[in-house]
Amino acid sequence: MTDEPLKIGVLGYRFMGNAHANAMARLPMFFPDAPAIERHTLVGRDEEALAEAADRFGFSHTETDWADAIEAVDVFYNLGPNHVHVEPSVAALEAGVPVLCEKPLAPTLEGAERMRDAAADADVPSGCAFNYRFVPAIQHARNLIADGEIGEIRHVRGRYLQDWLVDPDAPWAWRMDADLAGSGALGDLGAHSIDLAGFLVGDAVGGIDRVSGHLETFVEERPVLDDDGNVEEYRDVTVDDAFSAQVAYESGAMGTFEASRFATGHKNDHTVEVHGSKGSLRFSLERLNELEVLREGDRGYETVLVTDESDPYVDHWWPPGHVLGWEHTFVHENYEFLSAVAAGGEFSPSFEEGYQVQRTLDAIERSDERGEWVSVE
Amino acid sequence: MTDEPLKIGVLGYRFMGNAHANAMARLPMFFPDAPAIERHTLVGRDEEALAEAADRFGFSHTETDWADAIEAVDVFYNLGPNHVHVEPSVAALEAGVPVLCEKPLAPTLEGAERMRDAAADADVPSGCAFNYRFVPAIQHARNLIADGEIGEIRHVRGRYLQDWLVDPDAPWAWRMDADLAGSGALGDLGAHSIDLAGFLVGDAVGGIDRVSGHLETFVEERPVLDDDGNVEEYRDVTVDDAFSAQVAYESGAMGTFEASRFATGHKNDHTVEVHGSKGSLRFSLERLNELEVLREGDRGYETVLVTDESDPYVDHWWPPGHVLGWEHTFVHENYEFLSAVAAGGEFSPSFEEGYQVQRTLDAIERSDERGEWVSVE
Amino acid sequence: MTDEPLKIGVLGYRFMGNAHANAMARLPMFFPDAPAIERHTLVGRDEEALAEAADRFGFSHTETDWADAIEAVDVFYNLGPNHVHVEPSVAALEAGVPVLCEKPLAPTLEGAERMRDAAADADVPSGCAFNYRFVPAIQHARNLIADGEIGEIRHVRGRYLQDWLVDPDAPWAWRMDADLAGSGALGDLGAHSIDLAGFLVGDAVGGIDRVSGHLETFVEERPVLDDDGNVEEYRDVTVDDAFSAQVAYESGAMGTFEASRFATGHKNDHTVEVHGSKGSLRFSLERLNELEVLREGDRGYETVLVTDESDPYVDHWWPPGHVLGWEHTFVHENYEFLSAVAAGGEFSPSFEEGYQVQRTLDAIERSDERGEWVSVE
Amino acid sequence: MTDEPLKIGVLGYRFMGNAHANAMARLPMFFPDAPAIERHTLVGRDEEALAEAADRFGFSHTETDWADAIEAVDVFYNLGPNHVHVEPSVAALEAGVPVLCEKPLAPTLEGAERMRDAAADADVPSGCAFNYRFVPAIQHARNLIADGEIGEIRHVRGRYLQDWLVDPDAPWAWRMDADLAGSGALGDLGAHSIDLAGFLVGDAVGGIDRVSGHLETFVEERPVLDDDGNVEEYRDVTVDDAFSAQVAYESGAMGTFEASRFATGHKNDHTVEVHGSKGSLRFSLERLNELEVLREGDRGYETVLVTDESDPYVDHWWPPGHVLGWEHTFVHENYEFLSAVAAGGEFSPSFEEGYQVQRTLDAIERSDERGEWVSVE
Repeated sequence: MTDEPLKIGVLGYRFMGNAHANAMARLPMFFPDAPAIERHTLVGRDEEALAEAADRFGFSHTETDWADAIEAVDVFYNLGPNHVHVEPSVAALEAGVPVLCEKPLAPTLEGAERMRDAAADADVPSGCAFNYRFVPAIQHARNLIADGEIGEIRHVRGRYLQDWLVDPDAPWAWRMDADLAGSGALGDLGAHSIDLAGFLVGDAVGGIDRVSGHLETFVEERPVLDDDGNVEEYRDVTVDDAFSAQVAYESGAMGTFEASRFATGHKNDHTVEVHGSKGSLRFSLERLNELEVLREGDRGYETVLVTDESDPYVDHWWPPGHVLGWEHTFVHENYEFLSAVAAGGEFSPSFEEGYQVQRTLDAIERSDERGEWVSVE
Repeated sequence: MTDEPLKIGVLGYRFMGNAHANAMARLPMFFPDAPAIERHTLVGRDEEALAEAADRFGFSHTETDWADAIEAVDVFYNLGPNHVHVEPSVAALEAGVPVLCEKPLAPTLEGAERMRDAAADADVPSGCAFNYRFVPAIQHARNLIADGEIGEIRHVRGRYLQDWLVDPDAPWAWRMDADLAGSGALGDLGAHSIDLAGFLVGDAVGGIDRVSGHLETFVEERPVLDDDGNVEEYRDVTVDDAFSAQVAYESGAMGTFEASRFATGHKNDHTVEVHGSKGSLRFSLERLNELEVLREGDRGYETVLVTDESDPYVDHWWPPGHVLGWEHTFVHENYEFLSAVAAGGEFSPSFEEGYQVQRTLDAIERSDERGEWVSVE
Repeated sequence: MTDEPLKIGVLGYRFMGNAHANAMARLPMFFPDAPAIERHTLVGRDEEALAEAADRFGFSHTETDWADAIEAVDVFYNLGPNHVHVEPSVAALEAGVPVLCEKPLAPTLEGAERMRDAAADADVPSGCAFNYRFVPAIQHARNLIADGEIGEIRHVRGRYLQDWLVDPDAPWAWRMDADLAGSGALGDLGAHSIDLAGFLVGDAVGGIDRVSGHLETFVEERPVLDDDGNVEEYRDVTVDDAFSAQVAYESGAMGTFEASRFATGHKNDHTVEVHGSKGSLRFSLERLNELEVLREGDRGYETVLVTDESDPYVDHWWPPGHVLGWEHTFVHENYEFLSAVAAGGEFSPSFEEGYQVQRTLDAIERSDERGEWVSVE
Repeated sequence: MTDEPLKIGVLGYRFMGNAHANAMARLPMFFPDAPAIERHTLVGRDEEALAEAADRFGFSHTETDWADAIEAVDVFYNLGPNHVHVEPSVAALEAGVPVLCEKPLAPTLEGAERMRDAAADADVPSGCAFNYRFVPAIQHARNLIADGEIGEIRHVRGRYLQDWLVDPDAPWAWRMDADLAGSGALGDLGAHSIDLAGFLVGDAVGGIDRVSGHLETFVEERPVLDDDGNVEEYRDVTVDDAFSAQVAYESGAMGTFEASRFATGHKNDHTVEVHGSKGSLRFSLERLNELEVLREGDRGYETVLVTDESDPYVDHWWPPGHVLGWEHTFVHENYEFLSAVAAGGEFSPSFEEGYQVQRTLDAIERSDERGEWVSVE
């Protein structure tokens, strides 16, 4: 590792591209000990849109071929749609380039396995970008659980509610196609909840023993719109609009998970709840600066504003009571990932962890197909 | 039916006996058109405690044999533990005496079936005392759904959390014994959620197609204490401490249910949530005067205090903003049941409805045993 | 005092008459150690309505002359409009009959002074029916403050919001007339807040040093409707629709108070908040089973459901988590008042305490008139 | 105005310096139509700290003399302590350099008047940095009021609670000194509430008629600590620790305001509430993505997550449900101010508006001293 700034290559320049480019841009002012980086190459197919994005996001180069980009950079971010997660990520790792890939790791368990194996064979860090791990309130929750403040874990509950498909005429998109996305609400939203549960209580409950899943597609086909907004054709929705799952953990703890794109009125409502023998915790992404904490001896939940200097990452930002937003999770994530790259260390969540989530998603799908509980295998 | 007050016989003089006695006592002042009643006979085994309770609850007679009581009264309330639900209820119905029985209807599906059949053969009303149907906010919710304000139902969610068994040294009680109680959190708490879901959305979603259940017992045995509080012996807990279930409704709607006696910090936290194509609803028993309503065009939930004169039952009580308590549900329930008795009409929830709940509970248990989805049969 | 039930006479048979009659009716079942009483004489002017009310509220006699009633009973409840508080209450006390009078004590400070003096001269208990003192959560709050858990008190905040006059065509009523009611939102609602603040922190802050008041009447006249709902005439509103006040306590603590009949959307929203050097408390009447508590070392408010067996009065009612309603405050109040009568003891809030509240109300009005801070004299 | 980037000079490099530097840095990616700027000169006294800050905040030059800085730049930000607001701001305006100055405008009314006059004489924009105007939820609230959705305004309520001085041993700081800060909680916190109220309802209620104020200092002196944390001396606290105020608006509407540095448990809790004849609004800075809205016909407040594409400024950021933080208010503010500079237009809140707030603060102090209501003159 030289003293040169790390050259970052990024595949994907839409929502996630923006979120990560912003995170990188903010590191020097707030995390001055982060490694120096250069937003180097932005990768995409539409050259015009790509050039516009590179300009806006501060990248000095563009590429339409990700293989070329991988050759040119020190670190590779794979922020494209799920179906382009595997090949570029594996190629980068095989070239010794660290990779941060958006979640879910891959559309299929097989793809995720290839990525996991490539990461295991490489001696550079890999990361699966479960950004919600980097909410200060979530880190605070994990610390409370790890410190035994919540006691023996009995119940975990994850729920991720959106409503952008409530209208049956909402247009078709790649996220509704099994080949492109793998699954629907399950992989897009449920992956976050499954990962977060693992992050919070995984050590305490000893892994997932078996799961029972339920997937449902409420609207079977959706219009494809042309540039004028007219319906060109109807295309099948081949993924789930919503899922639910029951989980039996090895310790005997119980989990319930649920996600939907049909929860009218909920925009991005991700909640996680934990009950233990000594206390309980509640978190909602819509109020991401808050953690509801019930400790031994408490009679009710304490609504903690997790913005004190002593809270995770908060000392980098503003005084107590000055709330952070959704995007800050990406700053923290990028800080940790890039620091691991620079130090040659490990990053968590790794591809291995992303693969474990994928195994659970896969088991939920298999359970739904078979109509029975299945092991996570 | 003469003009004489209806003589009421009540089996059970503890928590539920008190709740119903109180309800009866309050009818004349707030529901003056309710039929006149006499709190006539209280039935129990411990004569001393029974006499004390009869005095306090305003009953003029006591009986230790329920069969004798049934002969002496016009209406029979079966408020004893689950294992004494079947015989007295069936006997009363066979004697042409209307019966209001506490929930769940019976410890076993077979028992519930006997009760359902006896009610079908009798030409007097039967009732299964799911009191939460009689919360004004719940009735308001049902009206909104029935009026189509919530649209096509996609999701139903029921959760009933208590924490009285968190301590592994909490003493053994009949509610932890399969023979006496049938099941644990499932029958005690889940029955309420299952019934409430049916009440709210049953017509809209067309019945339960199949269920997947998960029951867990966290603490396998509990101490039996003698009168001095010393441990006499340890007895097995043979019911579930917690359960979860996934439900597939005939319409394609999805349901998730969960109850626990191990949810630290939650005393009697029963929540029900519904998402439809046009709106959403949320209710929590701990704030039973409130209903959270999201209607077409709304951007968020409206927290409605359901205490207006035009709200169900509220005109019988106090001006807007003067909140009711848990016990008022029993007053409304008694009013409806006794009015049905006096009019010779139907009461809902009937034994038939209680039986339908029992079928679902039974299916959840069967599913848990078999590790697969099962039909409600 | 003989063993005969206490004969209760009640002036007023509307809202407050109903609330107290209900409270009396419920004592035997839930407060068996309360003195035995007989709902004896109900006093009013409209004989037909009075007879109907007496029947419904369980009174055996009626009277149209309160003086006759006082002679016939052992205890006198004055629940009429404010302008009939003074004469009957003084007469009863002079006759040695204990009096519970609704709040505010009198329409004028002079009236309140006469009542206070009569109570001081009598050797029977007097009570001013500030029922919100008897909310379990309020009693819990007071205990926390008295135990020093909140530390030195810095801020007290009371706010009582209603909206029944928002519509400028809402009809005229006696509560809008200075002669009949004394004041408007100030006496009707503010009296509650002032009393509650005194109850909670009075000992800690050492009394009110001076106040600054602001009264406003938004709608100057209102229609008087005939029986067909037609406007007969317009009558002046001679009281405040809303008030605010600043309070300087002797300890240096600061208070702010506010009440309105024009707070759109708020039905009966009475909140009290306290900040001390060690903690803070928040209470809202719309969620009267809850107290928000922040104690030394806490990072946020704990939402305490004040329904445990160890909470004030709760052991008389239901198990934890089974919430009480607004009306229960009257049961507790009646229990305490009648127990004081039977024991020949003191009841708090007494007429003296009601008079102290009246002094504050009077000072707020004087301050508003003069445009300056005034002492409570 | 050339096409060269605007050279920005900033006095102050601590909390506010950081907040504005961050805002400037984020404009290109999210507000690409903002004028190009260069973070040019950072002004301060401690050269070492200044250099470190300039490096971190991205400024290419530093100056210890603000007069030199003003000569070197196109735009001047005055983010220093209150007592250095007047001279540099006036000098800049006299030199034709636009000025954005932190709030409150000046420590004294006279100072504010000089600044207001200088701004009136200059033909460049001036701005008083009341950043909370630029919360999307606040802009949404203002739009609702301006559109008449809330009706005729009756009540405005502002409350700003912090707790950093609860500990009597908390060290002395310039914010506690009348000469350096002007006032305490009043100017630091109350200025925000007063401005926000004016922004929201000013047009509707027609200005402030008169005010009644109350200021209190709970702890009269505080320790000055040396570098080792030892107490060097005790210095007087010559400003208010807390204030309250009552406001009479010209329309007859009523306002109440309150701020404290002694509200235990509240870190940065700024709430504003409005009641009108048709609806009500509630906002809390701790949940700054939410606005509680009650409109005509609603039965309760709707909790609106103000993160839709159609909400003010939100289309520049993330999809619905992805919440913003405190710092985003500065980005919006900088965008508007710099756009006004580039276009040669007006910026609101201007120095004139900052002066109007100062008049109210001054009136509140005068009222407190005199013990009477005073006009805002």
